[in-house]
Amino acid sequence: MSTRPSDRCSRKRPYTRPLAGPRGAGPRRWCSGGGGGTPLPRREASVIARAAGKNYLLTVDVESGEVVAARHEPHLGVPPGDAGGYAECEAEDGRRLVKLECFTTTGTANFYMRPIEGIIVLTDLDTNEVVEIVDKGKHIPIPKAAGTDYRLSAANGPIIKLPNPISMEQPNGPNFVIEDDHLVKWANWEFHLKPDPRAGVVISQAKIRDPDTGVLRNVMYQGFASELFVPYMDPEEAWYFKTYMDAGEYGFGLQALALDPLNDCPRNAKYMDAIFAAADGTPYVRENMVCVFERYAGDAAWRHTESPIVGEMIREARPKVTLVARMVASLANYDYIVDWEFHADGLIHVKVALTGIVIVKGTSYVNMNQVKENESLYGTLLSDNIIGVVHDHYVNFYLDMDIDGQDNSFVNVHLKREYTNGKSPRKSFMKVHKTVAKTEKEAQIKLSLYDPSEFHVINPNKKTKVGNPVGYKVVPAGTAASLLDPEDPPQKRSSFTNNQIWATRYNKSEQWSGGLFAYQSHGEDTLQVWSDRDRDIENKDIVLWYTLGFHHVPCQEDFPIMPTVSSGFDLKPVNFFERNPVLRVAPYVENELPVCKAAASA
Amino acid sequence: MSTRPSDRCSRKRPYTRPLAGPRGAGPRRWCSGGGGGTPLPRREASVIARAAGKNYLLTVDVESGEVVAARHEPHLGVPPGDAGGYAECEAEDGRRLVKLECFTTTGTANFYMRPIEGIIVLTDLDTNEVVEIVDKGKHIPIPKAAGTDYRLSAANGPIIKLPNPISMEQPNGPNFVIEDDHLVKWANWEFHLKPDPRAGVVISQAKIRDPDTGVLRNVMYQGFASELFVPYMDPEEAWYFKTYMDAGEYGFGLQALALDPLNDCPRNAKYMDAIFAAADGTPYVRENMVCVFERYAGDAAWRHTESPIVGEMIREARPKVTLVARMVASLANYDYIVDWEFHADGLIHVKVALTGIVIVKGTSYVNMNQVKENESLYGTLLSDNIIGVVHDHYVNFYLDMDIDGQDNSFVNVHLKREYTNGKSPRKSFMKVHKTVAKTEKEAQIKLSLYDPSEFHVINPNKKTKVGNPVGYKVVPAGTAASLLDPEDPPQKRSSFTNNQIWATRYNKSEQWSGGLFAYQSHGEDTLQVWSDRDRDIENKDIVLWYTLGFHHVPCQEDFPIMPTVSSGFDLKPVNFFERNPVLRVAPYVENELPVCKAAASA
Repeated sequence: MSTRPSDRCSRKRPYTRPLAGPRGAGPRRWCSGGGGGTPLPRREASVIARAAGKNYLLTVDVESGEVVAARHEPHLGVPPGDAGGYAECEAEDGRRLVKLECFTTTGTANFYMRPIEGIIVLTDLDTNEVVEIVDKGKHIPIPKAAGTDYRLSAANGPIIKLPNPISMEQPNGPNFVIEDDHLVKWANWEFHLKPDPRAGVVISQAKIRDPDTGVLRNVMYQGFASELFVPYMDPEEAWYFKTYMDAGEYGFGLQALALDPLNDCPRNAKYMDAIFAAADGTPYVRENMVCVFERYAGDAAWRHTESPIVGEMIREARPKVTLVARMVASLANYDYIVDWEFHADGLIHVKVALTGIVIVKGTSYVNMNQVKENESLYGTLLSDNIIGVVHDHYVNFYLDMDIDGQDNSFVNVHLKREYTNGKSPRKSFMKVHKTVAKTEKEAQIKLSLYDPSEFHVINPNKKTKVGNPVGYKVVPAGTAASLLDPEDPPQKRSSFTNNQIWATRYNKSEQWSGGLFAYQSHGEDTLQVWSDRDRDIENKDIVLWYTLGFHHVPCQEDFPIMPTVSSGFDLKPVNFFERNPVLRVAPYVENELPVCKAAASA
Repeated sequence: MSTRPSDRCSRKRPYTRPLAGPRGAGPRRWCSGGGGGTPLPRREASVIARAAGKNYLLTVDVESGEVVAARHEPHLGVPPGDAGGYAECEAEDGRRLVKLECFTTTGTANFYMRPIEGIIVLTDLDTNEVVEIVDKGKHIPIPKAAGTDYRLSAANGPIIKLPNPISMEQPNGPNFVIEDDHLVKWANWEFHLKPDPRAGVVISQAKIRDPDTGVLRNVMYQGFASELFVPYMDPEEAWYFKTYMDAGEYGFGLQALALDPLNDCPRNAKYMDAIFAAADGTPYVRENMVCVFERYAGDAAWRHTESPIVGEMIREARPKVTLVARMVASLANYDYIVDWEFHADGLIHVKVALTGIVIVKGTSYVNMNQVKENESLYGTLLSDNIIGVVHDHYVNFYLDMDIDGQDNSFVNVHLKREYTNGKSPRKSFMKVHKTVAKTEKEAQIKLSLYDPSEFHVINPNKKTKVGNPVGYKVVPAGTAASLLDPEDPPQKRSSFTNNQIWATRYNKSEQWSGGLFAYQSHGEDTLQVWSDRDRDIENKDIVLWYTLGFHHVPCQEDFPIMPTVSSGFDLKPVNFFERNPVLRVAPYVENELPVCKAAASA
C-alpha cells in the first residue's frame, strides 16, 4: 500500500489561491475547512494492491472505504533484489520476479562482505517458485569473516575515544515547537514535516517571516526526495541488473529505521515517529524515524572587521544557528542520511550523506599483482577476495517552489564573456543575460563550468522596492552526469539523470521522477517524458527538480564500513528580501551561554 | 618586508629524506639538528625592500644581519587600491602608482555603501603626488546612509535573539595540544600551524597516525592559500582595473585581524597570535589571529542500521568530531574565513567562506524601471542608487603532498562510458582508466561533468597489503572557470584560474601562483608559466594546486552586509589506509557527556 506524500492535501489547486490579501502574498491554509469557508476535501488514498496475480491501482474513499477508481497495472512490485527492466525478466508478463543474491552470515554481522559470488536465484515472489539458478562463481572463494564486523560489541582491538567530550548543548530546551505533531515553527521559518513511506520525509508549505514586514511568505509548497538511482558498473551476469531505484522499488521511508539518539543526531534533538501502512493495510508506528534539532557548528552567519580607516576598530560577527530535519534510510547495505537544513537567512540546504556498507563482489584475487594487464575488476580490490564495484548514486529532488504565490517563472541567469572591443583597457568581462524559460524543454539544464548560469525561480508578479522580481535560486553542488547510454534500459527508467536541473509544469500525477511504478518500468512515466511535452512554464505553477550525484570508485577506507561522504545543494533567496534578513541577529555573549561541567561519570 | 611561509625550513631538499626507516615511511624532522646529526640550516630571510625609489629583493642572514644576495626588481608594491597591470600605469617604470577611490564616512560606519562614484585619483605612493584625477560621476548621487550600518550599536530596530542558547561545549577542555606554540596534536593528526603575512596560515608537515600500525605517516609537506583573484566585471573607466590579487597585493595574513572569541569561533576555541614584521622590519604581535577548535556539528562519522535479516536488530553510529584551524582575512570590504578542517578518518577539508561587504557602484537609479532596455548595469540594483557589481572570487591553494614520502605521482582516474556490444543485457557501463601524468602539461586539468575523473596523488613506491598504491585524492567543489579572455592582462597575471587543478614539480621558488611580485606583473612568473615548462612529475616531489571559485552576481540580501557563502574541497585518503581508520571510534553515551544548566544570566 502506498499513499502519496500530499495525501493530506492531494488536490492542490483549490487551496493554492490565498484566501485573502494581495495575489501571492497571503498565507495558504493547510487543508483547513475553517476560516474562509472552504469545504474539507474528500479524503482519498491511493492503494497499490495485488490480488490473484494481478496488480491494481485503486483510489479508496477513506471515510466510506469504497473503491472510487480502479486500474489494472501490468508492471509493478517492490521486491528485495531487483530484476530490473531487462528483456529476459519480461518474458512472462505480470509475474513478480526477483533475482536473489547469496551471502553467508557465518562469523560476522556484516554478511555483505561474505558474498557467495556468482549465484543468482531468479524467483517468483507470488508462488515462491525458483525459476532459474545461475552459478558462475564456482572458483571464487567466500571472503573471510575476519575484520568485517563493525559492531562495537565485536571490536577486538582498542577503542578510540577522545578523552574530553564535546557536545552541542541547549539546557533551556529548543527554540522550535512542533504543533499538531507536524508543523515545525523555528525562528522565522514554518513548515510541515511528514515521514513518508516512499519519499522519506516531505517538507510542505515552507514559509519564512519577513523581518521587515512581519509577513509570513511562501517559499516552497512541497519538497522531497523523488527517486534514487544506483547503477553498478559491472556488465557480468551476476551484476549487470543491479541498477536500483531505491525510492520507487524499496521505499526511501519504509527503509528509514529508528535513529540512535546520541549518535545519529545530537543530544538536543527531538524525534518524530512515522505511521505507515503494512502490506495488509494495517497501520504501524515507526518510532524515532525523524529527528529535528538546532545546529550550531561554530560558524558565523556574517561578519566584518574594519581596519581603523574610520578612526575606530569595528569587529562584528554573528553566530549561525540552523534547524535540521533528518532521516536515515538504510537501503539494505547503504545508509543515506538526508538533512533539510533551514537557515535564518532564508537559505534551505538539502544534504545527502552516504555511509553504511559498500556492496562487494567476490574474487579469487588477494593482490593486484595477480590481475592480468588488460583485465578489468570493475572496481577496487578492497581486501582479500573482495572487490568494491564502481557505481553511482543519484538522488533526485522534487521542489515545488511557490515564491510568494503559485505562479512562478524559471530564469536562466547566464554568465557570458563579452569583449570591450577597445573601449576599455580590459579586453573582456563577464556579463549577465537573463532568459525566462517559456516551456519545459528550455528548462532542461545540463550544467557546464565553462558556460555557467545561475538558475532562479522568480515570481514575475511581485517585485522588491527597487524593482527586482522576488526569487530563489538553486545552487548546485554534488553534481554528476550519468555516463550510461541514454537508450540503456536502466538509464531510460532513471532518465531524470539526463539533466541536473529541470523545471516542469505542476501536475499532481507527476511526483515520482522515475515513474509511479519504477520496478520493471520501461521509462514510459518519467520526468524526461513529462518534460518533453514541453508545456508552458512561464508565470505558471512550476516544479523544480534537482539531482545530486556521486560517482563512487570504492577505496580500502570503505572497508568494512564506509566513512560518511556528503554533498548537498542550496535553495537560496535572491532578491527575495529587501536586504540581509539576519542583519539584526544578536551576537553571543559569555554570560548568556550554558554553564557546563564535566560529565557525571568522568 | 616579506618572509616566505617556509622560512623555518626554507631549503626543503636536505631535510626531506627520512633519517631512518624504509624509503618514504619515516617521519621528517622539522628543521631539527639533533638526532640524525644533520647540521642546522643557515637561517635566512627574504626581504623585499624599497629605497630611494628602487626595489630590491634581498636575502639576509638572520644571525649576522648580512645581505647574502640582492636583486633589483622593477615591478613591485603592496598598495591599497590597485592600478593593475594596465599599460597607462606602466608609463613611468618603477613608480608605485595606485588608483584611489572615494567614499564618504558620514552617517555610517559602512562607508563602502556611500561611494563618490566615478572619482579616481591616480597617486604616486613614494612622493604622495597626485598624478591624475578622473571624475566621470558628476550626475551620480552619493547613496544614502540610512540602513547601511551593520553594527549592533547602530541597530534602530528590534534585535533577533533565539531565547534558548545553543553552544558547543567541552567543559573538560580540548583534546588537542599545541606544542612549541605551533605544533598541533589532535586525535591521530599532527601538523605545524603558522600564521603567515602573505598566505594567511600555513599548514606544514601534516601527518596522521595509522591506527593499524601506530606509525605517524606523512600526508602533506605544506599547504596554504597561494593567491586570490577577484576581478570585477565592469569595463568602465572607474572599474575596469579592479582585478585584485589579495594575497600578493595586500597580504592575506596581514589583513587577518583579531577574531571575535564567541562569534568568529565557538566558545571552546583556543587562539594563536601572529608575529609579523612592520614596514620598517620591527616585529609586532597580531593577537588572536588564528583559532583552533574541535567541532561537533551533530553528524555521524559512519553509521549503519541492519534490518532484522540476520535475526537481530543492529544499529551502530559514531559521532564525527573534527579539528578546525581558522583565520579570517578582511580584505578591505570582503571577509574571507579560511578553515583547515582535519577529520579523524584522514580527510582534510579546506573551506573558504565569504562574507563582509560587497563593493558597490553609485548610480542615479532607484528602480529597475528606469533602466533602458539594452542598458547594462554590470550588476544588480541592491538599494536606492547602489549597484552590486558582478565579480568572481578565486582562491588558489598550494598543496605540497608528500604521501608517505617525497616522491609521488599524479594519477588521472578517468571514468569513461564503455559499451558491452551485446555481451550483456546492459548496453553500457562506466569504467575506470588510470593514467599517470608523466609531465606537468598532462596535469593541467579542466574539470568536466561529462568527462569525469578523480585525481589522485599516489606514492608509487608504497602499496597496501592487497597491492593498491597508497594515495590521497583531491575532491573538487566550489569550482568556477574564469570567463576572461586568456590574453586579458588580469587573466594573464591570474592564469592559475586557467585550470582548476594542476600538479607541478616542487621548486622552492614556485610558491605564489600569481607570481612573487603580483602587483604590476605581466604574468611572467605564474603557475601557468612554470607548468608550461612541462617538467617530469612521475615519481617526483610534486605540488598539487587547486582553485576554489565563486561567480558572484550580488542580490539584495547582500546589502548592507553579506550572509556567509562557503565552499570547499577535500583531500581524502584513497587506499592510504588498509581499512576504515575510524572503525574503532567509540559512540557517545549519555553519562559521559557534559552536564549543563541554563545560562547564569537567564
